[in-house]
Amino acid sequence: MPSVKMLINWQGKFNFSAKNENGLNVHFDAPSDFGGDGAALTPMENVLASLVVCSGIHIIDFLNKRRHKLNDFSINAFADRREEPPRGFTEIKIEYMFKGEELDENDVKEAIKISEEKYWSVGSMLKETTKIKSAYLINRE
Amino acid sequence: MPSVKMLINWQGKFNFSAKNENGLNVHFDAPSDFGGDGAALTPMENVLASLVVCSGIHIIDFLNKRRHKLNDFSINAFADRREEPPRGFTEIKIEYMFKGEELDENDVKEAIKISEEKYWSVGSMLKETTKIKSAYLINRE
Repeated sequence: MPSVKMLINWQGKFNFSAKNENGLNVHFDAPSDFGGDGAALTPMENVLASLVVCSGIHIIDFLNKRRHKLNDFSINAFADRREEPPRGFTEIKIEYMFKGEELDENDVKEAIKISEEKYWSVGSMLKETTKIKSAYLINRE
Repeated sequence: MPSVKMLINWQGKFNFSAKNENGLNVHFDAPSDFGGDGAALTPMENVLASLVVCSGIHIIDFLNKRRHKLNDFSINAFADRREEPPRGFTEIKIEYMFKGEELDENDVKEAIKISEEKYWSVGSMLKETTKIKSAYLINRE
């Protein structure tokens, strides 16, 4: 079965670093309202980023296969959290912004649809507890 | 309502960077079996790390409040994924490893229990689709 392993090390205060088997790592800090001192992203910020990059990777893959040339691709993500603990996300809004002279809108729509419905590993887990909406914008520059 | 915002930028190939409102950022790459070139953690590695750091932060907070001195704290996380897309996690095992001369085992157990049952924002979302087990080890050094 495909597996993922991470080793996490506490580094004082609320700072943590996490390392995969190849030694690549990411740092974390607690949110400021919890006493974190803003040294790194919080776990919830990282989850939101991971969610969006997960669909982004599949969107890029799909557009590559259709031989589209992207000049730029960025994504905004906004998430609301529960007021009371555990403060999971309640709603997430994603805005995909594509830039490319000859991008075909139908292919962009299909790229998003297939990524979100078929390949979205992170999304498939969060969808059960969180309402997720997405929209897109194509800039032909 | 408390909210989280992230801006994600594609940086060519399958490389992405994600930035919060304070300009802190994290990088991502696709998994190697997807054609990523190992420049950064994958979204699923990042989610696993975020899950574990999320409980880790609350464990540290609890032990601080009970005035325990920790010499070291690290966490191993192992996750299995589905074979077919979307390849979300199916099972996650977490091993909390504490080091401290005078750590009270009951307080350690309570710290884990309260963190996982009450404050685990990331865990509260993943628990719906993933079996999560945890264990702990105390080293009195």
